[in-house]
Amino acid sequence: MDGMTISVAVSGASGYAGGEVLRLLAHHPNTTIGAITAHSNAGQRLGALQPHLHALADRVLVDTTVENLAGHDVVFLALPHGASAEIAAQLPADTLVIDAGADHRLESSAAWEKFYGSAHAGTWPYGLPELPGQREKLRGAKRIAVPGCYPTSAQLALVPGFAAGLLEPHDVVIVSASGTSGAGKSAKTHLLGSEVMGGMSPYGVGGAHRHTPEMEQGFSNAAGEPVSVSFTPTLAPMSRGILTTATARVRPGVGAAALRAAWEQAYADEPFVRLLPAGQWPHTKHVVASNHATLQLAFDEHAGRVIVACAIDNLTKGTAGGAVQSMNIALGLPETAGLGIEGVAP
Amino acid sequence: MDGMTISVAVSGASGYAGGEVLRLLAHHPNTTIGAITAHSNAGQRLGALQPHLHALADRVLVDTTVENLAGHDVVFLALPHGASAEIAAQLPADTLVIDAGADHRLESSAAWEKFYGSAHAGTWPYGLPELPGQREKLRGAKRIAVPGCYPTSAQLALVPGFAAGLLEPHDVVIVSASGTSGAGKSAKTHLLGSEVMGGMSPYGVGGAHRHTPEMEQGFSNAAGEPVSVSFTPTLAPMSRGILTTATARVRPGVGAAALRAAWEQAYADEPFVRLLPAGQWPHTKHVVASNHATLQLAFDEHAGRVIVACAIDNLTKGTAGGAVQSMNIALGLPETAGLGIEGVAP
Amino acid sequence: MDGMTISVAVSGASGYAGGEVLRLLAHHPNTTIGAITAHSNAGQRLGALQPHLHALADRVLVDTTVENLAGHDVVFLALPHGASAEIAAQLPADTLVIDAGADHRLESSAAWEKFYGSAHAGTWPYGLPELPGQREKLRGAKRIAVPGCYPTSAQLALVPGFAAGLLEPHDVVIVSASGTSGAGKSAKTHLLGSEVMGGMSPYGVGGAHRHTPEMEQGFSNAAGEPVSVSFTPTLAPMSRGILTTATARVRPGVGAAALRAAWEQAYADEPFVRLLPAGQWPHTKHVVASNHATLQLAFDEHAGRVIVACAIDNLTKGTAGGAVQSMNIALGLPETAGLGIEGVAP
Amino acid sequence: MDGMTISVAVSGASGYAGGEVLRLLAHHPNTTIGAITAHSNAGQRLGALQPHLHALADRVLVDTTVENLAGHDVVFLALPHGASAEIAAQLPADTLVIDAGADHRLESSAAWEKFYGSAHAGTWPYGLPELPGQREKLRGAKRIAVPGCYPTSAQLALVPGFAAGLLEPHDVVIVSASGTSGAGKSAKTHLLGSEVMGGMSPYGVGGAHRHTPEMEQGFSNAAGEPVSVSFTPTLAPMSRGILTTATARVRPGVGAAALRAAWEQAYADEPFVRLLPAGQWPHTKHVVASNHATLQLAFDEHAGRVIVACAIDNLTKGTAGGAVQSMNIALGLPETAGLGIEGVAP
Repeated sequence: MDGMTISVAVSGASGYAGGEVLRLLAHHPNTTIGAITAHSNAGQRLGALQPHLHALADRVLVDTTVENLAGHDVVFLALPHGASAEIAAQLPADTLVIDAGADHRLESSAAWEKFYGSAHAGTWPYGLPELPGQREKLRGAKRIAVPGCYPTSAQLALVPGFAAGLLEPHDVVIVSASGTSGAGKSAKTHLLGSEVMGGMSPYGVGGAHRHTPEMEQGFSNAAGEPVSVSFTPTLAPMSRGILTTATARVRPGVGAAALRAAWEQAYADEPFVRLLPAGQWPHTKHVVASNHATLQLAFDEHAGRVIVACAIDNLTKGTAGGAVQSMNIALGLPETAGLGIEGVAP
Repeated sequence: MDGMTISVAVSGASGYAGGEVLRLLAHHPNTTIGAITAHSNAGQRLGALQPHLHALADRVLVDTTVENLAGHDVVFLALPHGASAEIAAQLPADTLVIDAGADHRLESSAAWEKFYGSAHAGTWPYGLPELPGQREKLRGAKRIAVPGCYPTSAQLALVPGFAAGLLEPHDVVIVSASGTSGAGKSAKTHLLGSEVMGGMSPYGVGGAHRHTPEMEQGFSNAAGEPVSVSFTPTLAPMSRGILTTATARVRPGVGAAALRAAWEQAYADEPFVRLLPAGQWPHTKHVVASNHATLQLAFDEHAGRVIVACAIDNLTKGTAGGAVQSMNIALGLPETAGLGIEGVAP
Repeated sequence: MDGMTISVAVSGASGYAGGEVLRLLAHHPNTTIGAITAHSNAGQRLGALQPHLHALADRVLVDTTVENLAGHDVVFLALPHGASAEIAAQLPADTLVIDAGADHRLESSAAWEKFYGSAHAGTWPYGLPELPGQREKLRGAKRIAVPGCYPTSAQLALVPGFAAGLLEPHDVVIVSASGTSGAGKSAKTHLLGSEVMGGMSPYGVGGAHRHTPEMEQGFSNAAGEPVSVSFTPTLAPMSRGILTTATARVRPGVGAAALRAAWEQAYADEPFVRLLPAGQWPHTKHVVASNHATLQLAFDEHAGRVIVACAIDNLTKGTAGGAVQSMNIALGLPETAGLGIEGVAP
Repeated sequence: MDGMTISVAVSGASGYAGGEVLRLLAHHPNTTIGAITAHSNAGQRLGALQPHLHALADRVLVDTTVENLAGHDVVFLALPHGASAEIAAQLPADTLVIDAGADHRLESSAAWEKFYGSAHAGTWPYGLPELPGQREKLRGAKRIAVPGCYPTSAQLALVPGFAAGLLEPHDVVIVSASGTSGAGKSAKTHLLGSEVMGGMSPYGVGGAHRHTPEMEQGFSNAAGEPVSVSFTPTLAPMSRGILTTATARVRPGVGAAALRAAWEQAYADEPFVRLLPAGQWPHTKHVVASNHATLQLAFDEHAGRVIVACAIDNLTKGTAGGAVQSMNIALGLPETAGLGIEGVAP
């Protein structure tokens, strides 16, 4: 299917996720960008809203409607949760719809209702091909739920250990630092540069963050038993990037070699996940604008725990890059088409 | 003892800790700054090395020798570990010596030797007056070991829970984000602005960081039983500040109200530690240049864990401010003399 | 008048300028803070709006009304232009009113109308005591217009040269880089941390910025002839600070020594302006939270121009610190009361 | 010549310029990366030195010697000035040598000797194809001098005005803000993250910066008469990017329309320079990692000056991107091969 040209519509194009989808598609060898849609910004030039997208600067945004989105081979939805489910339901069944929002990520309706307070819109194939057996489920799929940015990093960090039966299902602790783009582009006082530069703060503490059940879902599926997670997100003074520090109790008798082997094996053939050479730790800066996730782990024998650090770009591997990767798999394109692994540094 | 004037010598004055001691002493109502010493920078104007210390700009640094330091009421040591023990041993017994380095923090010689690989220089009164019973031990002391910056935040975060018997002694997980000043002023490639701006990375992972045994010491003393800790420090793109996310398993039957009550009670009368109103989370920016530590906690019933966030300025409450606070106590001055609680924001 | 206690009301207390006034007054030995007022945020705790002001956290903001402000010895107005003139007109004539806004800075009604598009509210004594003869005009004043942040740095940079007759009145070029707090605390997309971190951009280019006529006023008054200025402000990825690069054509025959002598002489006795030792250049970081302005100059013989760099904290010397300094002068207090010169660094 | 494969050697690969050359070549459709060389870092894995270059991580650096560099179609030199001239002299005449250093940029030996204090190594074709007539000089060239980063932005900003005879040759003032990567990767205290984050400072003031004669050369060539420049560089708290504010006196009778027309015409067909729509100003963030230069101008009638802002990525269009662009031209490849124009934002 290489060489074909696919028409793609992108909704939510004035936001950060939509902008990153467009940035990646602008370099994708197999796609042409069709409708670019927005809500309140419809009618504006893209150059006024995403001034870094020079090649697309003169494209004019149209309304996010079913009419404007239908008729493309692929539709990316980068919309607030709730909105995407509503639109997706009206798009043709043979259109590949890729939802960067949360609506179709959770398998458990109860978890959805508890964390989102609304009726569950149903579950779609989950766009994290690095999960065990997941790549197969994405081939030929017509609906894909893009994982949350934190859950992407957390699952890449710990799933190999759960899948290999090396970790206890309780006292899993995950602390992540995210760049501010993860909080979106809506103007809010606490996200002003003056407020965020030079400081760090936590939010959504105590099990309140909506990405918690998504992490537990991934861990539980891998472990074959329910896993509970304590997750704390923090806001870091940088635009892009997530550094996740994930730590779990190691089962009795498991040592450093077995741990390293499990992660090595899990990612040996993955094009976008890399266990770094021993001694080198991930840095979010090294994956900026790249679809790469980098990992390192250490076994703390004294505390009986493994600590895994994972760095991703929240907008790329954490959102738009993961979405394009899943699109490639679904359409039978080379998985890496249009996706670089080199980060932008320094 | 209010109204008296104390002569103070500051060693290591070209570094970040020494600079911060000088910044605070410049506003202290009871001190005069005597010798300002350095090693390779001796002979230079302070204004060339600490250009923000305008009032002291024309002071010239002298060598860090016993001769230059002796004869003052108080000597601050802001030196590499090893160096301070050697100098302190030669200073008069009735001089108040305050060591910002690690040499005399640990009670356990075994822990010292394991983490520092040298002979233990002995234990001094520990300059964290907010620990149970600790303030009394500092009154009249002639030798004070200033706590490490991470242990300051970690102990303020969790000691109330251990002291009240509410927390399990295992699976304590602490993840801290520190500003780069915590890594010192030596020129190193990985600390260049180009390398650190816009990214986050962990280091000293897996129980390797030397502040780990210091945290365990504080928790174990408070709990009355050995506590083991998994500690991961990360480097954040900011000059100052530590945000510590500390989490521990809660003992069966303990609920949110009991937890909150324990922290409230512990800090009700503390001038420099503040449990924020419910719902407000600490932000390192709000304590920049201040001796304040701000805290908030949440009980995650699902995970069975309490999560406590603590924000300090690593150079102020985490080093120089804590040192001045301990000096005030030791000398019988008002504990808050020369120490502001207002942060510099935005 | 030392030792007296002055009651001060602060309006606009939820913004950055108002917050900085409060931060300074919290340490001022002669003031008590009376009414703290705001517009839409009235009724809230200060701790929710200015979480760095720990000592005032439980104070509740009241409405910005004449009733709430009257009855204090001093009223600080940190309001949008237009609003301050209206309120000030209703405050008692013997209340010291200090306006951090623009309403009363300009002497020329024509300039006001051209740049602000409204009727001129009249001119007040200008709160930049370092201007020739200006300190005298502030003694006993009951109305003070605080200079704009950019004009503070620009005038401190070039006025000595104009006053000494060393500079040509044309082709004066000023380029300033400001921290984002200068743009205020209103939530705007282009001021989000995600947008400003890691980049620089100009704005108000081509003579459009409202601070231009204020600079020209100061230079023209000093020169005794009309001076025209090309001013370009830029937004830098930092919360606080202005670095102004000011350059002007030097009159024929004037050399490096005469230039340096003029600046040295102008600031020899100033408590808050410092010409750095030759070879040392200002850095905004070294004046963070301080009322200090630091300067350095170079004569470019080849280009026939002098280049002067000036660093200030836009919120301190550039706004609230300058305001408190002027208050001190007006009331006969020591000019430096409550104002530190040490910066917060690193 | 499209479709051909060119072998390229990159020296100075452990520095920022060398790293950026490699980042770009990794995506270039016509190049294979041959020798990757360094000085003190020879023998190390590239992944340890440039951890963002994931695809090349296992390549091992070899010594920067003529032997290792010869035998490639193209050699990039990213070396300290002096070193590149020495090596280039020993490389075969038919090898395309592209020097990112300063050795061969200046046409005037006198200027070279004044600013660099050594013997001039001679002048090479200058790799700024957007200068009038310059593209032709690069076709088939075997030696190319990559412009300095500041001169790239300054010349793109003002050359159209000089070439069209619209600007006076004196009182040209240029103030640039550069990201810290422009200062290189050597570990220096004043470039530590702790020192640069949150502040701005000037350096090389008063005509002292070595890029000044390079700017004057470009302007003088375009104007057909000697042009003198006052140039002040400043260091901004960001890793990448240069924002140049360039301003010049407009000749009598020249108005806004004539100015805009000159710039529009100059860049109408340029693939990597874009005059933004009126009202939109450049932002360095919008060109991060891109080879684009964005421009905007304003005519300040009151001051009689035009102000032009130009944003580039100092490492891309300002160094490595400009180098690859020139290589493409020299070899007859499509000028845009391997060079993206989309920036990485937010």
